[in-house]
Amino acid sequence: MKVHKIIFLAIILFFTGNSSVNALNKVKNTKAKQVLTVMEKVADWQLASWKQNGTTWPKWDWTNAAGYIGLEKLGLISKNPAYLETLLQFSKDLDWNTGPNRFYADDYTVGYTFTKMYQKHKDPKMIAKFRLLADSIVAQPHTESLEWKNDINHREWAWCDALFMGPPALSLLGKATGEMKYMDITDKLWWKTYDYLYDKEEYLYFRDGSNFTKSEKNGKKVFWSRGNGWVMAGLALTIDNMPKNYPTRAKYFTLFKEMAAKIASIQQPDGSWHTSLLNPAAFAVIETSGTGFYTYALLWGINNGTLDKNTYGPVVEKSWATLVSAIQPDGMLGYVQPIGWQPAPATAKSTAIFGVGAFLLAGSEMHKYVSK
Amino acid sequence: MKVHKIIFLAIILFFTGNSSVNALNKVKNTKAKQVLTVMEKVADWQLASWKQNGTTWPKWDWTNAAGYIGLEKLGLISKNPAYLETLLQFSKDLDWNTGPNRFYADDYTVGYTFTKMYQKHKDPKMIAKFRLLADSIVAQPHTESLEWKNDINHREWAWCDALFMGPPALSLLGKATGEMKYMDITDKLWWKTYDYLYDKEEYLYFRDGSNFTKSEKNGKKVFWSRGNGWVMAGLALTIDNMPKNYPTRAKYFTLFKEMAAKIASIQQPDGSWHTSLLNPAAFAVIETSGTGFYTYALLWGINNGTLDKNTYGPVVEKSWATLVSAIQPDGMLGYVQPIGWQPAPATAKSTAIFGVGAFLLAGSEMHKYVSK
Amino acid sequence: MKVHKIIFLAIILFFTGNSSVNALNKVKNTKAKQVLTVMEKVADWQLASWKQNGTTWPKWDWTNAAGYIGLEKLGLISKNPAYLETLLQFSKDLDWNTGPNRFYADDYTVGYTFTKMYQKHKDPKMIAKFRLLADSIVAQPHTESLEWKNDINHREWAWCDALFMGPPALSLLGKATGEMKYMDITDKLWWKTYDYLYDKEEYLYFRDGSNFTKSEKNGKKVFWSRGNGWVMAGLALTIDNMPKNYPTRAKYFTLFKEMAAKIASIQQPDGSWHTSLLNPAAFAVIETSGTGFYTYALLWGINNGTLDKNTYGPVVEKSWATLVSAIQPDGMLGYVQPIGWQPAPATAKSTAIFGVGAFLLAGSEMHKYVSK
Repeated sequence: MKVHKIIFLAIILFFTGNSSVNALNKVKNTKAKQVLTVMEKVADWQLASWKQNGTTWPKWDWTNAAGYIGLEKLGLISKNPAYLETLLQFSKDLDWNTGPNRFYADDYTVGYTFTKMYQKHKDPKMIAKFRLLADSIVAQPHTESLEWKNDINHREWAWCDALFMGPPALSLLGKATGEMKYMDITDKLWWKTYDYLYDKEEYLYFRDGSNFTKSEKNGKKVFWSRGNGWVMAGLALTIDNMPKNYPTRAKYFTLFKEMAAKIASIQQPDGSWHTSLLNPAAFAVIETSGTGFYTYALLWGINNGTLDKNTYGPVVEKSWATLVSAIQPDGMLGYVQPIGWQPAPATAKSTAIFGVGAFLLAGSEMHKYVSK
Repeated sequence: MKVHKIIFLAIILFFTGNSSVNALNKVKNTKAKQVLTVMEKVADWQLASWKQNGTTWPKWDWTNAAGYIGLEKLGLISKNPAYLETLLQFSKDLDWNTGPNRFYADDYTVGYTFTKMYQKHKDPKMIAKFRLLADSIVAQPHTESLEWKNDINHREWAWCDALFMGPPALSLLGKATGEMKYMDITDKLWWKTYDYLYDKEEYLYFRDGSNFTKSEKNGKKVFWSRGNGWVMAGLALTIDNMPKNYPTRAKYFTLFKEMAAKIASIQQPDGSWHTSLLNPAAFAVIETSGTGFYTYALLWGINNGTLDKNTYGPVVEKSWATLVSAIQPDGMLGYVQPIGWQPAPATAKSTAIFGVGAFLLAGSEMHKYVSK
Repeated sequence: MKVHKIIFLAIILFFTGNSSVNALNKVKNTKAKQVLTVMEKVADWQLASWKQNGTTWPKWDWTNAAGYIGLEKLGLISKNPAYLETLLQFSKDLDWNTGPNRFYADDYTVGYTFTKMYQKHKDPKMIAKFRLLADSIVAQPHTESLEWKNDINHREWAWCDALFMGPPALSLLGKATGEMKYMDITDKLWWKTYDYLYDKEEYLYFRDGSNFTKSEKNGKKVFWSRGNGWVMAGLALTIDNMPKNYPTRAKYFTLFKEMAAKIASIQQPDGSWHTSLLNPAAFAVIETSGTGFYTYALLWGINNGTLDKNTYGPVVEKSWATLVSAIQPDGMLGYVQPIGWQPAPATAKSTAIFGVGAFLLAGSEMHKYVSK
């Protein structure tokens, strides 16, 4: 029987061609399948964990909402319907409501997923509440300073994580509804935060204004890996939602290339970025959430021609290998720095859904990269 | 058959009298019915929207709680039981709990509705939790400055909206239970806020202490329409709950008349008040939430003899017409400035339950006004 | 029949011995039963109130979580399974989630009860989420000043109540899992708060940094009774979870004895501690939450040999009698100062679950005390 099978396969291979092009395609398919398999493994662990223990944080919370963004990307390339079904079910559980703090970007990140569901299922109810909220945001003058006090983060994008939490969701709503005002408010607020938090010497974002005067033990400024990962991933997601002829579009690419060059230059020998970007020795261990976001953003830049493949390809191939090495045997993604707002350690056992989201974002672009 | 009907009606009309008094009564009845009809139209849109989409904000939230106050007034004059039934059902859904931030007036506005339900149904369970909270409030020394920092709004009435959110609920609890301490704490805190936020030159309230030094582009101070609307409506509702012989009662009327004169003097030619009271050109469009509250408060003053009908009658007749003109064909009240804390624009499509509440409050007094 | 019973009892007594030792044992048993009976009376009122009205505050909230700690102690000595069953049911209702503000000690006090349930039922799911949170806490650098601004209480133990809310829960998790890192973070943060809030002249804790410069009308510093009660009870609970050979263990006992001596010296003639410790005349009425915590802590110290029974025995016997006198005929514990953060009055009718918790803690140690 075994011999029969081999003969059968040989015949199939003979008839399907044996040119070098086909051989290359097979290699690509195999690589793409490997990427998809590892993405599904990580995502399946997450879904199983949710099934067994419920979500660790509320379903509307940024922690989960950041994860949903990666899960949706996986849902588009996987044959398993569970990923998109879970997102639809969670959205229904929330009755399409964002979180309680209306103007706090962390609480409306989930609007991204509602809008993706709306694009797929076309039911206006899915974005009705998020639109009302977005209208409220549009209606605010946004004239406050971003100084880190008086709960400014509950009203403005005054910390760098916000650039992942807010812009992709608002700009996607603009794309889905054709209402330019949502893209315009995204644009206005994006550059307000840029003016305040972007360090034009280091090409990195401060986490928030309380860090302007802090320094690491080695004398360097404090730049947080996941924080800048939020920015770069948020940047890529936002550009994807932006009209091709949007007036300030070029500025986003300039910023993206500036940060990409800097980030690539400070990758660690272990393939990851440590939680303190300019003092990697502070916590000398790999970390997967920041690394996942950088891997996603750099691959996105290569895949769309913004970044040079020869220069950046080796960076992301190395960082992807590091990410895959952090997956525990049962599929749990380890080495995610726990919730925080500054450099701090990660361990093999520390996981979190937003780290899974970063990994799946990276995987979604690696899947394209190896298929090219 | 048609001829029979006309003859029948003629006979009825003949026997029910044809004096000028009766004719006037008929006009009054017609006008009152028109007011009621338009109130029901707006409220029915809101109930239908809730049925279809759920509430946009949590049921305990000030947004809805401000709306409930208007719905309850409508419930008292409409034959449709749905308004009061909805309030009872929502209260049950909340298990008679106020919102999560205990001393934040926004989160206990809903106590007003619980107390109204208690007055109707006499079940002590309905106010048991609100009483406990009110006892906690009474027990606080309230000695902090109202300076706009350190989340003071979570502990004191440090912004002018609070004068709608807190005093009507606490004073109504006092009326319903006969416990004078709830009126006394209302009184103490009302005048603390007055001392801090009331501008004795302009006869208007600053929204909060962060506005003392701000100015509009035309050089005027920043006074927000809905903010002062909250105050005047809160003032009327509070006086309604106050014992006739309450020691400081006259002070409330003095304040009311002072503000009423100022507000009437700055009505816009379009019949509304724009969101920046002293710089109406900043957002040169009608706005229905502030206008609703002013229309309510001024009508309340006319109806109870505090304000002169000849002086204030034309103001409210004009503003009422403007409010009615903002109702969209399907019953949605438009031109409500979205959630905010300062002057900002409104559009035909911007609605919100608290704007509906303001409209229904205005309608409830207009209904009396035209019946007189 | 009655005569038969007496004869029967006499025979029993005869055979069970009539030595003075036995007589003493009978007195002890009677006293212990009296303590248990009064504890159950108070707890049963609370359970009945929950059954009838639901919990006044969310189930995850510190108010309830502080109460659960006392209920668990009662559950260990009572034959009525309802106390521990209620805690298990509430924990299930919460799906073993702590409250929404992750690093706010008030919101993870309930982790104590989850861990107690885990120790009993051995299901890792019960502490899975609390462990994740605790890992996040461990991962934070905790380098901020405890100055009372910028919501520091949402990130650090910057107010004295936190020493009850956080340390017992985290250290118990350490004990239950054998992971020393949870005890170590407890230890590190305990002494950070000590350095900031402990007054080394008065041997008392300031409530928070905003009180450093305040004074009572009699010129004394402001020290809040319940606030220092939280500290002393938190101290006792934390030491109970600490390994016997823990390096800094002796420091905790030194602090405990220092505070115990001070507290005993300022007990009021009525057996209680008034809400302003150094200006008892400010609110000259008994208060049961602070008094409950002091009674618990002092009895704990006597029972484990830290405090001298001759010196402290009369203090706690008097304060226990005062606590019992505050129980209303229906079992409601009165004279609990409502939720607050500074000295304020209490009344016969003011109750709260955290006051019940303090009483049950006191009772649990009084039960041991009278059994010795």
